[in-house]
Amino acid sequence: MAHALALAARGLGRVWPNPAVGCVIVRDGVVVGRGFTADGGRPHAESQALTQAGAAARGATAYVTLEPCAHHGQTPPCAQALVDAGLTRVVVAARDPDPRVNGGGLAMLRNAGIKVTGGVMEAEARALQAGFLSRVEHGRPFVTLKLAMTLDGRIATASGESQWITGPAARAHVHAQRARHDAVMVGAGTARVDDPQLTVRGMGDVPQPVRIVLSRHLNVPVDSAMTRGAAPLWMLHGDAPQERQAALKARNVTLIPCSAGPGGHIDLDAALIELGSRGLTRVYCEGGGTLAAALLSQGLVDRLDCYTAGAVIGAEGTPGLGAMGLSALADAPRLRLTEARRLGTDLLHSWTTE
Amino acid sequence: MAHALALAARGLGRVWPNPAVGCVIVRDGVVVGRGFTADGGRPHAESQALTQAGAAARGATAYVTLEPCAHHGQTPPCAQALVDAGLTRVVVAARDPDPRVNGGGLAMLRNAGIKVTGGVMEAEARALQAGFLSRVEHGRPFVTLKLAMTLDGRIATASGESQWITGPAARAHVHAQRARHDAVMVGAGTARVDDPQLTVRGMGDVPQPVRIVLSRHLNVPVDSAMTRGAAPLWMLHGDAPQERQAALKARNVTLIPCSAGPGGHIDLDAALIELGSRGLTRVYCEGGGTLAAALLSQGLVDRLDCYTAGAVIGAEGTPGLGAMGLSALADAPRLRLTEARRLGTDLLHSWTTE
Repeated sequence: MAHALALAARGLGRVWPNPAVGCVIVRDGVVVGRGFTADGGRPHAESQALTQAGAAARGATAYVTLEPCAHHGQTPPCAQALVDAGLTRVVVAARDPDPRVNGGGLAMLRNAGIKVTGGVMEAEARALQAGFLSRVEHGRPFVTLKLAMTLDGRIATASGESQWITGPAARAHVHAQRARHDAVMVGAGTARVDDPQLTVRGMGDVPQPVRIVLSRHLNVPVDSAMTRGAAPLWMLHGDAPQERQAALKARNVTLIPCSAGPGGHIDLDAALIELGSRGLTRVYCEGGGTLAAALLSQGLVDRLDCYTAGAVIGAEGTPGLGAMGLSALADAPRLRLTEARRLGTDLLHSWTTE
Repeated sequence: MAHALALAARGLGRVWPNPAVGCVIVRDGVVVGRGFTADGGRPHAESQALTQAGAAARGATAYVTLEPCAHHGQTPPCAQALVDAGLTRVVVAARDPDPRVNGGGLAMLRNAGIKVTGGVMEAEARALQAGFLSRVEHGRPFVTLKLAMTLDGRIATASGESQWITGPAARAHVHAQRARHDAVMVGAGTARVDDPQLTVRGMGDVPQPVRIVLSRHLNVPVDSAMTRGAAPLWMLHGDAPQERQAALKARNVTLIPCSAGPGGHIDLDAALIELGSRGLTRVYCEGGGTLAAALLSQGLVDRLDCYTAGAVIGAEGTPGLGAMGLSALADAPRLRLTEARRLGTDLLHSWTTE
C-alpha cells in the first residue's frame, strides 16, 4: 500500500476533479502491474495497472489507495474491471465518500466473490486525498496557505523590497508545491504590486495549475504577467465595471462573479464552494496579507506552510498577515505543528488547523 | 572529552566571571576523578577532579575542556596542581585566550614532561565557552536574544493581552535558559508594561541570574516585582532624575550610568562592555521589541532563540521586533539556522549571527 500511495502522490495537482489514486497488482509476491491516475483524471489507476498486468492479474491481489469506482462515468467502473480481470483479493486504503461510490465499489467486489480488505494505511491515504475528500465532504477544495517571511514575520521592507527574502531552495520548494496543487490563488493587492506569473518553473514540462485572483472590483491590470501567460487564469470578483470585465475576457480570463460577504468583500466561503463546484480539489494560496488573514480568520485554511528566512526587517516592514480584528487572545486561530525542517538557508514549518 | 564537556555545561550561568570548565581523570580505562567549576567560579574543575582521584591521579590522563590556568589568582594554578599530582598526559579541548594564560598552562605542563594533546573537540568546547571567550576576546558578554511570538511575529494582541502565547513546555524551557545565563536583560518598556520577575522558577533551588533593566531616564516603577525580589537587580541608565536614582538605590538596585549613543539612547555596545567588565559572560535578553531590534541592528546578538506558537493574531498585534530603520533588504541582518525542534505545542528554532 505504501508503494500504491507513492504512485498516487504523483497525480497531485494534475488529476482534478478526480482523486489522485495509486494501484499496485501483486501476484505470488511479484509486482505485475502499477498505475496511477493519469493527467486530467483518466485513465484511472486501476485500469492502467490492469493493462500492465494483463493475464497475470488472474488470481492476483490489487492494492488500491481509494475504493474503486462503481459507477459508469466517462470510464466503465473500475470495480467491474477488477472482477473481470479475475483478481482474488483487493486491499483498499480509504472508502470513497462520493455518493456515487460510497461503499458501492467494495460491495461490487464482494458480490463477485473477491476477498476485500479495507482501512489499510487509511490515515495516510486520507491525508493524501485531503483535497478530493474536502471537495466531496465539504464542497470546497483543501486550502494550503503559504507564508514566506523573515524571522519577525515580514514579507517586504518599508520601501516594498521583497526579492529575495527566502533562498533558492525554499523558492524551488514553492514551485514544487504549486505543481502539487490544482490552482494557485492570490488577492488583488498581490496581483497589482508583485505582477507575479504564478506558474511552475524549473521543473520541466509539467501541467500548469489554474491561476486564481480574488478582486472585488477587478482593479487589476489588464496587461500583466498573468494575462500574458498561457496557463488558465480565473478571476473571482464582485461588483466590477463592465468595460474592465470585457477587457479581461478579451484576454481569455475566466470571470467568476461571487456573492458579497461582510463589508462588501467577496464571501470567501462561497468563493471556495464555487471553486469546488468547478472541480478544484487543492488550492495553494500565496497571499497577500489581507487574503491570508481573512482565510485564517474564517477557518478556511487547512494547512499552513511557513518558510522562515534567517533575516530580520523590523516593524516598518510589510507584515505577512494583515489585520484580523481580534479582540481577545482566546479568539486567535490556533494551529498544530506537523513538520519542521531546514530548507537551504531557511526553515520550513508546516501547521494544520485540524 | 564529551564527558568533560557535559560536566562543564552544568556550570553555565553559575560560575561567572570564570569559565565553566569540566575535567575527567582516567587511569587504566577507569574514571578516577570528575569535576566541574563550582558555583561562583571556584574551586576549579581540575582541583575538584584531582581531590576525587587522590593517589589514583599518578600516571593518569586528564581530559580538560579549557587550558588549565597558569597564574596565581585566588587559587594556585591548576597546571601546577596537575604536575604535582603526577599526571602523565593531559588532553585539552580549547586554549584559554585570557592573556594571563594563553598557552602558558600548556607550556607549564609540557615543561614538566607531561604529554599534552590540544584541540580535541575544540569546536564543541568553544561553543560551550562562547560567553567566557566573548568576554575575553571582545570585552562583552555573549548575548542570547529570546523571541516568543505567534506565527505572524506578534507578542500581544492590540489590547495588550500576551498570556499565554506559547505553551507550558516553551515557558519551562525559558526558565531553564535563564538558569544557564549569568543575567537576564529587558528594556524599560517591558519592565513597565509586564512587571516581570525575571527569576528562574520551577527548577528547584538554583542560583538566580542578575536581572538587568536598560532605562535611559529610569522611568520604571520603584516598587515592582523586580525591586521586591531578592535576586540582584542592575539598572543601566543615562540622564535620570536624582530623586529616582535615590529611591531605586534605597531598594538595593545597583545603578550603572552609561554613555549615550545615537539619538541620546543608551550606547548598547558600551553598555555591554560595561557588563563584561563587571564579569558577566552570558546575557539572556527577553525584549522588548525596541531593545531586541536595536541589539540586532547593531550586530550585538550572538544567538537568537525563537519560540513560535501555533497561533495568529494579525497585523494589529504588537510586533516582537520594533522598528529597525532599514532602507534596503540587503542591509537586513542575516542569521544562520542552527536547530529546530518541537517543544510541546510550539516550535523552537535557534539562529546564530556568526
